Amino acid sequence: MPQKKVKAIDTLCIATELVLPNDTNTLGNLMGGRLLHWMDIAAAVSAHRHSHRIVVTASVNNVSFNQPIKFGDIVTISAKVSRAFNSSMEVFMDVWVENNAEGKKVKCNEAIYTFVAVDQLGNPINVPELIPESEEEKQRFAGALRRKQLALILAGKMKPSEATELKALFDI
Amino acid sequence: MPQKKVKAIDTLCIATELVLPNDTNTLGNLMGGRLLHWMDIAAAVSAHRHSHRIVVTASVNNVSFNQPIKFGDIVTISAKVSRAFNSSMEVFMDVWVENNAEGKKVKCNEAIYTFVAVDQLGNPINVPELIPESEEEKQRFAGALRRKQLALILAGKMKPSEATELKALFDI
Amino acid sequence: MPQKKVKAIDTLCIATELVLPNDTNTLGNLMGGRLLHWMDIAAAVSAHRHSHRIVVTASVNNVSFNQPIKFGDIVTISAKVSRAFNSSMEVFMDVWVENNAEGKKVKCNEAIYTFVAVDQLGNPINVPELIPESEEEKQRFAGALRRKQLALILAGKMKPSEATELKALFDI
Amino acid sequence: MPQKKVKAIDTLCIATELVLPNDTNTLGNLMGGRLLHWMDIAAAVSAHRHSHRIVVTASVNNVSFNQPIKFGDIVTISAKVSRAFNSSMEVFMDVWVENNAEGKKVKCNEAIYTFVAVDQLGNPINVPELIPESEEEKQRFAGALRRKQLALILAGKMKPSEATELKALFDI
Amino acid sequence: MPQKKVKAIDTLCIATELVLPNDTNTLGNLMGGRLLHWMDIAAAVSAHRHSHRIVVTASVNNVSFNQPIKFGDIVTISAKVSRAFNSSMEVFMDVWVENNAEGKKVKCNEAIYTFVAVDQLGNPINVPELIPESEEEKQRFAGALRRKQLALILAGKMKPSEATELKALFDI
Amino acid sequence: MPQKKVKAIDTLCIATELVLPNDTNTLGNLMGGRLLHWMDIAAAVSAHRHSHRIVVTASVNNVSFNQPIKFGDIVTISAKVSRAFNSSMEVFMDVWVENNAEGKKVKCNEAIYTFVAVDQLGNPINVPELIPESEEEKQRFAGALRRKQLALILAGKMKPSEATELKALFDI
Repeated sequence: MPQKKVKAIDTLCIATELVLPNDTNTLGNLMGGRLLHWMDIAAAVSAHRHSHRIVVTASVNNVSFNQPIKFGDIVTISAKVSRAFNSSMEVFMDVWVENNAEGKKVKCNEAIYTFVAVDQLGNPINVPELIPESEEEKQRFAGALRRKQLALILAGKMKPSEATELKALFDI
Repeated sequence: MPQKKVKAIDTLCIATELVLPNDTNTLGNLMGGRLLHWMDIAAAVSAHRHSHRIVVTASVNNVSFNQPIKFGDIVTISAKVSRAFNSSMEVFMDVWVENNAEGKKVKCNEAIYTFVAVDQLGNPINVPELIPESEEEKQRFAGALRRKQLALILAGKMKPSEATELKALFDI
Repeated sequence: MPQKKVKAIDTLCIATELVLPNDTNTLGNLMGGRLLHWMDIAAAVSAHRHSHRIVVTASVNNVSFNQPIKFGDIVTISAKVSRAFNSSMEVFMDVWVENNAEGKKVKCNEAIYTFVAVDQLGNPINVPELIPESEEEKQRFAGALRRKQLALILAGKMKPSEATELKALFDI
Repeated sequence: MPQKKVKAIDTLCIATELVLPNDTNTLGNLMGGRLLHWMDIAAAVSAHRHSHRIVVTASVNNVSFNQPIKFGDIVTISAKVSRAFNSSMEVFMDVWVENNAEGKKVKCNEAIYTFVAVDQLGNPINVPELIPESEEEKQRFAGALRRKQLALILAGKMKPSEATELKALFDI
Repeated sequence: MPQKKVKAIDTLCIATELVLPNDTNTLGNLMGGRLLHWMDIAAAVSAHRHSHRIVVTASVNNVSFNQPIKFGDIVTISAKVSRAFNSSMEVFMDVWVENNAEGKKVKCNEAIYTFVAVDQLGNPINVPELIPESEEEKQRFAGALRRKQLALILAGKMKPSEATELKALFDI
Repeated sequence: MPQKKVKAIDTLCIATELVLPNDTNTLGNLMGGRLLHWMDIAAAVSAHRHSHRIVVTASVNNVSFNQPIKFGDIVTISAKVSRAFNSSMEVFMDVWVENNAEGKKVKCNEAIYTFVAVDQLGNPINVPELIPESEEEKQRFAGALRRKQLALILAGKMKPSEATELKALFDI
């Protein structure tokens, strides 16, 4: 019996964190490892809301740290599943930072994690398909396939000639 | 110069937490102290979004723990300023819990914290007024005055006979 | 068979904490949430010493933060059960702070938490009565009844007219 | 004045971590976010040993979690700079896990992080070149260039036709 | 000007800790390292109450772990300065454990740490002498001198023939 | 059946830690208790690599803190079993610190911990003998016997006259 599809918006997880002293380096900025940890939890909650299963981190595909985040800043992580493949879910995150003094909210980075749904023994288990609705959700849904092909090629599990979607990216 | 009023919705802070092993007691349930700590941070962010100032916890007015929250559950805290008085802000929080296995979201408690906005030296500083819009926001806005009168009476700083708003509560 | 009554002094729990960097906000002061967490553990130990049962936080009745506590300060929490009702225990706490440089010990706040004793399945279980001995213990014992009545009224579970003890407070 | 080149082996950082209860999910396995955090610190130490500068995480290029790591397992992270580009350093990590009961050491994943050396104001500052010596170090040194080209193309900062090194990968 | 002497009882620090999941090893027992950390803080507070100075750990002289402490147990650390020498203070600790289920309080180990009082630059600074009053305080005061001699001999800074107090121990 | 002997080098555990804000005291230096905790984990891993058993801390024999370690410094702990006695293992640790700014690696202290191997019920279980190979390993192997005798005498479990190895130390 096929599972009921899930709308992207229903997988949304918003997490808010305050940058405390122990999260910072000698420059007083948020350490990358802490943000990676926070994002892992927000993304896991999003993948759980999609699958209602135990989910485990499968890979971190790309995270860029574009600007320093300061002690006392408020960090908001917005995570949504961008596409589901069998037992895996790609989760796309946007991270904003609010400066404590001014309160202006600025987007500081994007990140993509992949999770796998597992049963109590840790074996992969199928998840519902995702329905993208907004324009951004549709773009990220399409991009997820290209990213999956790229990951398979880099891991030597797919020939570049078969990666139809990816070729568009390289204008080949 | 009077400050621009702030809409309640603009002070909303949503925080999402996963109950990890170290958050639990010997029954495997979330310890009250951990939830009190998480709520303090969510409420502080909400008060900061209202005032754009450094905010410090002034009091915890009432928190009830109605049902156990389990290891692995997802806790969502939704905090909004319910009313501002000079330099203080009452923040009202609703807490939901999602059971990891079923994914059903249940409201598990409410809490009210009060924060004070301070300058760099720690002195109280005035904050904008709050504009409640929804029906619930208006009810909480009205209740905040009764709660303030009750706190003043309990602290011996107001006579019961002066607490007009509070009297309605006691049908006196 | 009725349980043996317990003297208030036998429920005393003294906890000492050092304010470390991660406990502080951007002003370098102890965050309220951290103190709430520390008090929850001290109060739980006190309630456990009363009941010799697993205890869970039922409510936080009132906590005021009167003065900033600084990084490096020593915080001493003194918790004692103030009254027992069936399965619940009200715990009264006094908090002192010692300034690292001067070593003077100053009382900085009071707090009241309520705990419930539960069995291994989490069901409430009766606890012994408390015997107050000192003058302060007797005052807090008496106050606990008024606070319970106030909580019941605020929760809509008691009519103000029935709250005999509470009426005295309001001079009605 | 050009800086003295640094041998890859001189940037080696070995970190050993024990998987404690709070590092695990509901299956009792190490959470991905915790490993990401540990790797960030090990990689930062490696980049610091290369540059003797303050280093900040610039990006996480790819991390795969291939097998569950259990509560009580010993995790060993071996981090070495694989190549330096102006102010940035690519750090390559191998992660091994030792089962507590059997003590067998198994490689469980690889990860690549990029760090940037900065001065006290947070501005990028040049770092020495890296000298790879072992066969593996040379392969990773060569791969680092392809990974850099891929990152630039994905970020829209380089045309695929210019990515000479990368083309070899795609057999184009 | 000589400093006012301090009574041993005025240096007493009582710390109470609850053994949480993250404090335990794979057997579910408190890890030694965590207790060492808790004792360091309790001893530091005791040394601070003696000297009213910043104090830093100079050495851990001897700690034995005689019996396992379980998850959920309550650990009470009682620390008192046993003797002061110029800028250093020996702190003697007794550790009790209360089993969560039975509530019986059992002494589980003793430990001795040495602290040094320092000024803002970290330079050693003299502390008041200690006045032992109870029989136990006097025994520990006397023992502190023997322990100091032993430490000096082991460090090669004193000849065994000069260690008058220590000789008594060895019946030489 | 006798167990296979283990070479000292096969018990080596290298741990690397970065001094973060919450590890420091009011002088900005690493607190002793945190280092004691880190050393406990490194030593436990070393004892585990010797015995492939669950190991528990039995005692901390002597630790001296000779120089302050600063916020941002890199701490490297190198732990190796120095000798095994029935079910117990003495672990010898050398601790180095690298200054963040200069990167010079300086030895800052030595420490000796003793661990006991236990079965699933917590009962002591025999471990293999240790084979020291380098000159330093042989010296520490010999010293371990003297330290064991000293501990037995101090605990009143051995007469000084029987402590043949220890007498050499005291030139008696």
